[in-house]
Amino acid sequence: MQSFEIDKSDLLRFEKALDGNDAELESLLKEYHASEIALLFEKLPQEAKERIINILPTDVASEVIAEMHEEQDPGELLIGLHPEKRSEIIEELDYDDATDIISQLDEDEQQEILEDLDQEDADSIRALLKYDEDTAGGLMDSEIVKVNINLDKKDALDEIVRQSEEMEDFYTIYVVDDGDILQGILSVKSILKAKADAHVRDLVNTDFVYVKADLDQEDVASLISQYNLASIPVVDDNMKLLGRVTVDDIMDVMEQESTEDILKISGVSEDEELSGNWKDAVKSRLPWLIINLGTAYLAASIIRQFDGTVERFPIIAAYMTIIAGMGGNAATQALAVTVRRISLSDLTDKQAYNTVIKEFLVGLLNGAANGIIVLIIAYFYDANLKLGLVLFLAMTGNLIVAGLTGASIPLVLKRVGIDPAVASSIIITTFTDCAGFLLPLWFATKLL
Amino acid sequence: MQSFEIDKSDLLRFEKALDGNDAELESLLKEYHASEIALLFEKLPQEAKERIINILPTDVASEVIAEMHEEQDPGELLIGLHPEKRSEIIEELDYDDATDIISQLDEDEQQEILEDLDQEDADSIRALLKYDEDTAGGLMDSEIVKVNINLDKKDALDEIVRQSEEMEDFYTIYVVDDGDILQGILSVKSILKAKADAHVRDLVNTDFVYVKADLDQEDVASLISQYNLASIPVVDDNMKLLGRVTVDDIMDVMEQESTEDILKISGVSEDEELSGNWKDAVKSRLPWLIINLGTAYLAASIIRQFDGTVERFPIIAAYMTIIAGMGGNAATQALAVTVRRISLSDLTDKQAYNTVIKEFLVGLLNGAANGIIVLIIAYFYDANLKLGLVLFLAMTGNLIVAGLTGASIPLVLKRVGIDPAVASSIIITTFTDCAGFLLPLWFATKLL
Repeated sequence: MQSFEIDKSDLLRFEKALDGNDAELESLLKEYHASEIALLFEKLPQEAKERIINILPTDVASEVIAEMHEEQDPGELLIGLHPEKRSEIIEELDYDDATDIISQLDEDEQQEILEDLDQEDADSIRALLKYDEDTAGGLMDSEIVKVNINLDKKDALDEIVRQSEEMEDFYTIYVVDDGDILQGILSVKSILKAKADAHVRDLVNTDFVYVKADLDQEDVASLISQYNLASIPVVDDNMKLLGRVTVDDIMDVMEQESTEDILKISGVSEDEELSGNWKDAVKSRLPWLIINLGTAYLAASIIRQFDGTVERFPIIAAYMTIIAGMGGNAATQALAVTVRRISLSDLTDKQAYNTVIKEFLVGLLNGAANGIIVLIIAYFYDANLKLGLVLFLAMTGNLIVAGLTGASIPLVLKRVGIDPAVASSIIITTFTDCAGFLLPLWFATKLL
Repeated sequence: MQSFEIDKSDLLRFEKALDGNDAELESLLKEYHASEIALLFEKLPQEAKERIINILPTDVASEVIAEMHEEQDPGELLIGLHPEKRSEIIEELDYDDATDIISQLDEDEQQEILEDLDQEDADSIRALLKYDEDTAGGLMDSEIVKVNINLDKKDALDEIVRQSEEMEDFYTIYVVDDGDILQGILSVKSILKAKADAHVRDLVNTDFVYVKADLDQEDVASLISQYNLASIPVVDDNMKLLGRVTVDDIMDVMEQESTEDILKISGVSEDEELSGNWKDAVKSRLPWLIINLGTAYLAASIIRQFDGTVERFPIIAAYMTIIAGMGGNAATQALAVTVRRISLSDLTDKQAYNTVIKEFLVGLLNGAANGIIVLIIAYFYDANLKLGLVLFLAMTGNLIVAGLTGASIPLVLKRVGIDPAVASSIIITTFTDCAGFLLPLWFATKLL
């Protein structure tokens, strides 16, 4: 199987099968992997999704539900199902996935679902629901393979086989003491290789990385990525083992964090859903645009201070839009590089200082290069060398402002504990707009 | 161990230890994980790095080298070492990591390193060097655990234990026939659970996902993420098993692709290194700025077409900068959401159409909202309702242009096979700048 995209022909086949009987649909579904069906669901109406879920075997149905994007509202789909089918599906889900889906629903709907479940499953999910979904506790799965440190090889292997029956896959075996306190990890390799009379105690690796349940998901992702882990154990304040976060959950976190960075830099609220509707988009973006309107008035008010200059040299009005616009783009460049760099690793004071110096130099050089072009055009086209000089100085000056603000504002925000990505281009371009109007007008007033 | 950041106190301790003797440095190094030492290397000079690598045990030294970012030039560090130490370190590395590092060096340096290695290691690395580093073949590791489909449980387990001796960790056991043709995968769980007389043939799972060696790394990442895999097998055109790509390599790819998206949207060349020097930054950004300068002249030339209008109503000159600027920011918002959405999943024609309609609506509404604010200000501050009406129409019109271009240009680029992220804000804002000048001037000419 190598197909991993749902194309139009797949969709057409499904639309046709949905018009037919269940047997037809069932045989078509057999050709698709659960994650492919989840992709397909993005393009099907609610009733078709419910019908497919009801036809699918429970284990596949639960995998489809787990694979659906949060935005596709898998909870809504569950609520629409017959309570019995629904409980079967939820009991098949990993607890962390079940919790994520259920946490999206209203309190009432949550109660309704939980009441129908086995006591044990309901309790596990209730315990997970209390963690913030953006923390290790919210991401973790409580189904793990763990063995007591006092077991011998044979008992440990039996235990591992028994516990893994219910799991899709496991990467690491956790070793705990009688009080469930995490003692270390055990690799499959080391227990397979061990002599028959070996004990877990002799095989356990006590040098391991773990996280507390309340650690932010972004930090969990850094750790997993930094130490190249397939999973990481989650403990409470007493080192009691609560669960594990696996790398597949972390990949989702990384994607989400990168999306937030891109959106915030571009002046979009970080929780706008990419495929959300126009109402949400307006709500997410209008506040930023109104802030921008305020700053634009601020910049425009500078122009009014130089009414005399504009009247004497109306050509400046056209040129200053060029200088302001170039500053905005240069600032966005410096901002993107700096924000992304901060978000991948922390900078020392020295590195931060060097970054600002670098962006100053880049602004100076790019400013001078573009300034010379503008000067030449003014000289040949407007036949005005003095005007060219004014524009050269203003361009260079504004691109220096762009480099300095684009680099230093996110760095300062990071230092004072504010997310550097909120230094969106909307904020930074306020500076380059103001300087982009002020510099050419001021130089023109002095030099022309 | 939960520390995962290198802070100033760590750096100070190292700087102090580096002034002392080797024994002192050695005992300090014992407190740090290889990935922490790699982080620390970002802040140390070349000679300190070489000294530390020489002091570290070979297995830790090789892990540090593997963990160093490409930008930190681990190859340069290897070249500086004594050939014997260097060969020891490389032989300890996974082949894929060794290949990545060696591929960064000159042809001559590559030869020098490879000649000193064991014949087998050198051959394996030479084979990997021929794959493009951005493909499955370039990412893959050839050290895998594979068993013949004809083995029984005991022989298979022996084989697994034997092969895993040399590996750090394995997630999946690959099953091949006598010709090394991939037949399926075997989970540790299923072989542990199997009866003593079971054969691999009975346990193998033949429904698996694989990739061809020349598949682009971005597609490998989508597959691994979509199917929640810890690793994926890589095969040649005849289904012969070549190696596997593991999820930790994929996390690096995802980070890199997100960085490229952010940079490209912001008008920075995708291969600018985040911590590169000012020369590289100028080279990466200046071409975009010069393109922007050209488009800015285009927009400014529009202003010159309406010289009469500007002369009659000089106030328009200030207002049109506001309208153009607002359009630029609204376009950046629409662009960021659309580019990110395309980069996470392909859109059907219907979804693409809906996206454009959505952004049209968002532009209309945000434009009208901001237009009303501008209208009110013009009415009360400039005492000119007609001017307010001109500005209202121009603002609404330009934010519609912003939404339409921000959404449709990346979608069209994707359709014709061009990376949608090159529709950077520099390109998109050309439209909003032109419309931002044209609309208020044209409406003013007609209505005032």
